[in-house]
Amino acid sequence: MALTGVLRPGYIQIRVLDMSEAIVHYRDRLGLTEVSTGSDGRVYLKGWDEFDRHSVILREADEAGMDVMGFKVLDDATLNELTAKLEAYNVVVDHVEAGEQPGVGRRVGFTIPSGHRMELFAQMEKSDDGPQVVNPNVWQSEPRGMAVTRFDHALLYGPAIDEVTDLFCDVLGFRVAERADLGGAHAVWLTCSNKAHDIAFVPNPDPGSFHHAAFYLENVNDVVHAGDVMAYHDIPIDVGPTRHGITRGHTIYFFDPCGNRNEVFAGGYTYYPDNPTREWTTEQLGKGIFYYERELNDAFLSVYT
Amino acid sequence: MALTGVLRPGYIQIRVLDMSEAIVHYRDRLGLTEVSTGSDGRVYLKGWDEFDRHSVILREADEAGMDVMGFKVLDDATLNELTAKLEAYNVVVDHVEAGEQPGVGRRVGFTIPSGHRMELFAQMEKSDDGPQVVNPNVWQSEPRGMAVTRFDHALLYGPAIDEVTDLFCDVLGFRVAERADLGGAHAVWLTCSNKAHDIAFVPNPDPGSFHHAAFYLENVNDVVHAGDVMAYHDIPIDVGPTRHGITRGHTIYFFDPCGNRNEVFAGGYTYYPDNPTREWTTEQLGKGIFYYERELNDAFLSVYT
Amino acid sequence: MALTGVLRPGYIQIRVLDMSEAIVHYRDRLGLTEVSTGSDGRVYLKGWDEFDRHSVILREADEAGMDVMGFKVLDDATLNELTAKLEAYNVVVDHVEAGEQPGVGRRVGFTIPSGHRMELFAQMEKSDDGPQVVNPNVWQSEPRGMAVTRFDHALLYGPAIDEVTDLFCDVLGFRVAERADLGGAHAVWLTCSNKAHDIAFVPNPDPGSFHHAAFYLENVNDVVHAGDVMAYHDIPIDVGPTRHGITRGHTIYFFDPCGNRNEVFAGGYTYYPDNPTREWTTEQLGKGIFYYERELNDAFLSVYT
Amino acid sequence: MALTGVLRPGYIQIRVLDMSEAIVHYRDRLGLTEVSTGSDGRVYLKGWDEFDRHSVILREADEAGMDVMGFKVLDDATLNELTAKLEAYNVVVDHVEAGEQPGVGRRVGFTIPSGHRMELFAQMEKSDDGPQVVNPNVWQSEPRGMAVTRFDHALLYGPAIDEVTDLFCDVLGFRVAERADLGGAHAVWLTCSNKAHDIAFVPNPDPGSFHHAAFYLENVNDVVHAGDVMAYHDIPIDVGPTRHGITRGHTIYFFDPCGNRNEVFAGGYTYYPDNPTREWTTEQLGKGIFYYERELNDAFLSVYT
Repeated sequence: MALTGVLRPGYIQIRVLDMSEAIVHYRDRLGLTEVSTGSDGRVYLKGWDEFDRHSVILREADEAGMDVMGFKVLDDATLNELTAKLEAYNVVVDHVEAGEQPGVGRRVGFTIPSGHRMELFAQMEKSDDGPQVVNPNVWQSEPRGMAVTRFDHALLYGPAIDEVTDLFCDVLGFRVAERADLGGAHAVWLTCSNKAHDIAFVPNPDPGSFHHAAFYLENVNDVVHAGDVMAYHDIPIDVGPTRHGITRGHTIYFFDPCGNRNEVFAGGYTYYPDNPTREWTTEQLGKGIFYYERELNDAFLSVYT
Repeated sequence: MALTGVLRPGYIQIRVLDMSEAIVHYRDRLGLTEVSTGSDGRVYLKGWDEFDRHSVILREADEAGMDVMGFKVLDDATLNELTAKLEAYNVVVDHVEAGEQPGVGRRVGFTIPSGHRMELFAQMEKSDDGPQVVNPNVWQSEPRGMAVTRFDHALLYGPAIDEVTDLFCDVLGFRVAERADLGGAHAVWLTCSNKAHDIAFVPNPDPGSFHHAAFYLENVNDVVHAGDVMAYHDIPIDVGPTRHGITRGHTIYFFDPCGNRNEVFAGGYTYYPDNPTREWTTEQLGKGIFYYERELNDAFLSVYT
Repeated sequence: MALTGVLRPGYIQIRVLDMSEAIVHYRDRLGLTEVSTGSDGRVYLKGWDEFDRHSVILREADEAGMDVMGFKVLDDATLNELTAKLEAYNVVVDHVEAGEQPGVGRRVGFTIPSGHRMELFAQMEKSDDGPQVVNPNVWQSEPRGMAVTRFDHALLYGPAIDEVTDLFCDVLGFRVAERADLGGAHAVWLTCSNKAHDIAFVPNPDPGSFHHAAFYLENVNDVVHAGDVMAYHDIPIDVGPTRHGITRGHTIYFFDPCGNRNEVFAGGYTYYPDNPTREWTTEQLGKGIFYYERELNDAFLSVYT
Repeated sequence: MALTGVLRPGYIQIRVLDMSEAIVHYRDRLGLTEVSTGSDGRVYLKGWDEFDRHSVILREADEAGMDVMGFKVLDDATLNELTAKLEAYNVVVDHVEAGEQPGVGRRVGFTIPSGHRMELFAQMEKSDDGPQVVNPNVWQSEPRGMAVTRFDHALLYGPAIDEVTDLFCDVLGFRVAERADLGGAHAVWLTCSNKAHDIAFVPNPDPGSFHHAAFYLENVNDVVHAGDVMAYHDIPIDVGPTRHGITRGHTIYFFDPCGNRNEVFAGGYTYYPDNPTREWTTEQLGKGIFYYERELNDAFLSVYT
């Protein structure tokens, strides 16, 4: 089997302070489809190019940030195998019953050393609003707003990133696509696929911190168009449009109405497991993060939720 | 492990009638790097975004066409496992010693029911001219000509495509990303990765026939630029620039100086093994192949080498 | 004064067989704004990047084709001067009163030797839906469908093109940007601006024939997107996406529901009056019209309304 | 006549501190063609899409900055008329003999109230390396480096901008495409063509100051590619890639080796003389200059040569 184990980031649950503002942002500005609202008030959304019923979950709360990121695995057998491997690695796992998220099968949860909750799952209902299967058009209905295709990855801040890296690589089969030397500690960009990253971690003393959730666009022209949408609607931009040296992706960082950082992202090279890990030295880190500016802005390092 | 088994198309060996013309075409027009010439006269080339030392091999011969397509597998253990699976499937395999291609380890070869020779290998030297590893720039030297990034896939014509499909899926772990009903027989687009296809087959009575080798470009603008290069140098275009309904890729089909069909290709969706197979009915096949024209041209079906 | 005389194509009146189908096509597919319906049933539309109240007029009729193309001139004094020059050139002019088209001032009409009616006008009301003037955003409301920015030019078929060329150049101040030798007769691309063409003529025995009306897009990516819109809605494409050698523009030719040919067009060089006329020889005309295909299709020459 | 009077910026003479460094920058990085070196050491260059023999002149000096900007006018009669109009406006003009710049006819020079020298000329030899005239390809030889097509415009800093504006509009036939209220004084973007600007002025107490020379690119993808060239060669970027609210152009500001600011620029709307002047209020000026960032950086206002 060529693609096995963990397939991809399947969902992210984001805390927002005002649900109605958040819906306008994620549905009308990013262009996600609003799928359903749960009895507990959580709102489920998806990108136009995703088969699964949802990939973004908004939960109203007193504090912004990320509740959990869930990875879809190949099948139930894989879910069992990875659960056993986590337990053998002395990771405490818990079990969430099927249906806790509508249309999603049983989930296995655990907290990683950086303080973030991760989940694995194997089953999710397919959406009626995903890509067409018989004689498919390029899209089922024309993308709107920033036209994001999918939830793509997250960048998380927290302690003990070396241990997190080991867990993701040794237990979950990820690889380190890129690594940046921060002077002792390392930031890492991890992949379980041909994508340049599926999740990334930057060392920070605050456990469980959320730097950004990234949404994929088809190309750099769509990144520029997304910037036009942001300017029109006065959405605050952190940085961009620019390019990352790391992953080579074209990018804009911006903020949702309650301060969670979002990214629109396009491009990035095709990664394979026989690729060497790309390494960034401390003095060139600025170029790694922002290829054109070649220096970090203060907000990149200090602002997170 | 998330990416295992067969990783990707690793090389293609193409027969050309005039080596010096072919070198001008593949090196100066497509923009591949000329790596070396073997003592037997075979010429080795690579794309600017490939780590391995070569991916295209030109062999001067009396007849155009494809000698062999080689797939890189994860490691030697995988090579042994897949060899055992092939033999268990009653496929006759042969063994090519390390070094038969410069810098390439041992290879396992076999003929598939469509009459094409395939090979598997696990080891190839890395190129000095590949992507940079420490503080990498977007490219090591600026891409030239059509600026192709890599050898991407091949489309082959031959008999017994259903059996070929079974072999690729059951033994080598590929999946059928898309399937077209040709009225009884099926054309298939097979993937071992997140790419929409790594190899494709169209039913045809001529065994071992070669429809095209495809080279990847970064985006649709580069496809248009490639068209400008073709027009400038009077390279015959078969079809395009256009888009495929199948894979959604942007494309131009054109010919090398001795009549082998090439493709430049950009885009295409991100495939996952839990995606349903996209199905094309006979009456919509034209739209599947050429999304804008919505009909096949005669040459697409009848011209191959 | 640097920009004087005739400024640009100001409007085109197109005959359609079924108004409600035509409105869906021009408003929802091309993305024009529907401005108003006149008491005589004519429907007025405009592009999102045009200041004037309308630029496209649809008139229901028994036969497809073009009624008239109107050019906006700098001011009333210019209108008087050009009228005098036309009369001095022995062109019979007629006068259309202000308000015959809503919001449009007096117009001066005449028939050119190819059999087409042309008009000049100096005044049109500004639209509320045009570009913003104070602290303008890139667009006032996000472009829809093919996102055409403006009516750009028309290509007309008819006899006596050399005389037409003289009239446009000697009287109206146009220049011949490009000229193609059709073996005796010439096709011409005429400009009154920095655009590579504002109107073009191809010799044909049928007087007053209409080859296409062209609508401008921002770039080649939008041309490709327009192709996606056409494929989704089963709009018949004549040729493209491709590029013209003449003007260098990126293009798709397609048809409205009653068979009038439309074009979406992007790019094209910046023309100046001190540029030499670009000349196309008969044997290279195919490359001039379709730069990649390098040959004319039958429909290009034989299908018009 | 539709395009008359002043046609376009014809050349800019830039002072550089080290000629050999400057040549590498303007020829190999921007991709201009090196045309010739004069007996006085001045070096002449041109863009690949310009017919005239040169458009950029480098002069080695002790101080960076701009010597002069020259505008090409329609013909000799126009040159005489404009000279008379300047004198009638009490502008002191001087006369430069034909041949002072190789291949350039007589020039009329004058100093504008902001302290900058301007020249008008009607004649320049055509280049052998310009666009092809018979059966032209898209380019005569493939563009290199940042692939700039032409010298496009300059932005100048100095006093008395209102008087400069009057001179350009009343005497030379320019129009104010956009105007920004800086709290009393106004910055202006002036055009003599369909371009959104051919020259721009920002109020500043230092007379004769040079903010930037801009070079045109074909589209936003080429702007991004230019950024890649800058990053690769460690060319310092001031701002971008970003977009201007003013003109809507896509842009990067960067510096030549001796500190002159350059811009690569693509897009921008099509201007006509009947367009209203777009107005920017003081509080929205940041968005006017940098549409995505929505604030000025310090360097934009304070760094000039």
